[in-house]
Amino acid sequence: MDVEWVTADVARDMSLRALARAGVPEPHAEIQVELLLEAELRGRPSHGLQRLPRVIERIRNGVADPITRGQGRWRGTALLDVDGENGLGPVVAFHALTQISERARTAGVSVATVRRCNHLGMLALYAERMAQRGQILIALTTSEALVHPWGGRSALIGTNPIAIGVPASPHPFVLDMATSLVSMGQIHDYANRGEALTPGWALDADGEATTDAAAARQGALAPFGDAKGYALGLAFEVLVASLTDTALGKDVAGTLDSDRVCNKGDVFIIVEPASEGVARRVSAYLDALRNCPPRNPDCPVVVPGDRAQQARRASLARGVALPGDVWARIVALASSDTQAS
Amino acid sequence: MDVEWVTADVARDMSLRALARAGVPEPHAEIQVELLLEAELRGRPSHGLQRLPRVIERIRNGVADPITRGQGRWRGTALLDVDGENGLGPVVAFHALTQISERARTAGVSVATVRRCNHLGMLALYAERMAQRGQILIALTTSEALVHPWGGRSALIGTNPIAIGVPASPHPFVLDMATSLVSMGQIHDYANRGEALTPGWALDADGEATTDAAAARQGALAPFGDAKGYALGLAFEVLVASLTDTALGKDVAGTLDSDRVCNKGDVFIIVEPASEGVARRVSAYLDALRNCPPRNPDCPVVVPGDRAQQARRASLARGVALPGDVWARIVALASSDTQAS
Repeated sequence: MDVEWVTADVARDMSLRALARAGVPEPHAEIQVELLLEAELRGRPSHGLQRLPRVIERIRNGVADPITRGQGRWRGTALLDVDGENGLGPVVAFHALTQISERARTAGVSVATVRRCNHLGMLALYAERMAQRGQILIALTTSEALVHPWGGRSALIGTNPIAIGVPASPHPFVLDMATSLVSMGQIHDYANRGEALTPGWALDADGEATTDAAAARQGALAPFGDAKGYALGLAFEVLVASLTDTALGKDVAGTLDSDRVCNKGDVFIIVEPASEGVARRVSAYLDALRNCPPRNPDCPVVVPGDRAQQARRASLARGVALPGDVWARIVALASSDTQAS
Repeated sequence: MDVEWVTADVARDMSLRALARAGVPEPHAEIQVELLLEAELRGRPSHGLQRLPRVIERIRNGVADPITRGQGRWRGTALLDVDGENGLGPVVAFHALTQISERARTAGVSVATVRRCNHLGMLALYAERMAQRGQILIALTTSEALVHPWGGRSALIGTNPIAIGVPASPHPFVLDMATSLVSMGQIHDYANRGEALTPGWALDADGEATTDAAAARQGALAPFGDAKGYALGLAFEVLVASLTDTALGKDVAGTLDSDRVCNKGDVFIIVEPASEGVARRVSAYLDALRNCPPRNPDCPVVVPGDRAQQARRASLARGVALPGDVWARIVALASSDTQAS
């Protein structure tokens, strides 16, 4: 694959220009680019800059509004109901988080339930930012139905990720994981390379187990963790829909296409830790985990978030490797010739 | 195994007598027995009446106080900090839930962080009760370190269950699952029967994979869902400890023994659904899952909580099968002869 090495600064600058040409106000463009770029830096290209052209297409198609930050209404003293007004995901999300973070200081806890908001991007960044403020975040979001129920033949459940951020040092504890076993992006990568899938990853369109990646694209992903992971992903689906009054299962659209209104839901829960001192105990415990004797001497025990931090440091030092066509598209979107197209 | 079939009424009556003899006030005994009996009825004997003798031993050993309901202090307008004062788990838990359920009506959300509280029992019942009141519950609790980190050799993480209750009909959606692949109770059952474990379930005391159930009792359980399940169980461990300022990892004690103060933590989050009508949509979606074409025609797709409801109906009709020694012990504890022992 043709790869372009780009420094973070160059990637940021070019992306900001592309968004400016699409009519995104500078403060909003900075938030949107930060989300995509941080995913790229941390080795999560599925949530990285490859999504920028789609963001711009969605603005041009009128299903993403670059101006609004969403409208919040307090549905209780600690529960903020947010109509995202089709705003950019990270713009609406950070605006909501700022409000509930403040409210949690006095209420101890505060929740934002968000509907009509575009794709949030990598949830880890929200968890990290709130933990850096000394607060705990639980973030849930639904998505297109790509996952089959355990024992079932068709995709009826989103990949429904969860993120949890907890203050710790040297960096916050950050969990960010989907409840599918693998991502549809991985299936597409395998299909593009003509590689066979690991058995158990996916079903084809008829609900039969398949290792044919091309067939799996029309089928369904397995939940992670068999019956338990299915139960958990399903619980997140009904939890988020109940709190946000958003779409369920096959009715969800708008995070993988360029022309449909995004009707999934997002939930953010911020809670104050019991004390400032507890972060020290958490950090010591995480170190004990890292020092747990490993089964394989070459594979030390890893704490969620550690690999992302390592990847980020490496990417800042040497740049990020973008698929050539992705970078060419971003450069084109940032240049004057394509504005009229 | 010697089995005694007992009706729910007889089991309840005998258990209440046993707790009365141990000095438990009647309202508290009723709550404690309900938790144990409902687990038994729903086919969860690990959380059932076999735990009653231990509850009584803990009262006699002074590590469980049958009188207190715990002391709550509002750490913010919506965050209740509860010192359980070594009270009975279900008594302290329901007292806290009553307070935050009421507060959530005006705040939209309310959280209880609980420390110094005995074993809660089956979390599903709390989730079901709050969902029957039209509220959403997320419940988390930590436990003794029995689970190894992914790729590690020793038990450093609790079985850290999660329960989620969401209003639906004909009965609420109730998820209740541990983050270990199997329970230590299952390992003990296999050891008692001299049966080999399924590969991948457990490690021995040296951190080597084993199928010897007796060896696994001194070792560690696998997390469910490999690396992702490990990450999730760990996230719950640090989340609960950070919110409750309770013990972490190997420092946790008091849910499996009879003489140590219980120092794990519990977290309850209650949130108001977006509308009353959303439960209808959730119910229709759950029906669509139940009707998903199954891979195996003999194994229809199951929604979390369905099997428990079926088991409960069957148990109410025909009674519950208790191990003979468990029932004999409860009968003895309820009779005058053993009071002095």
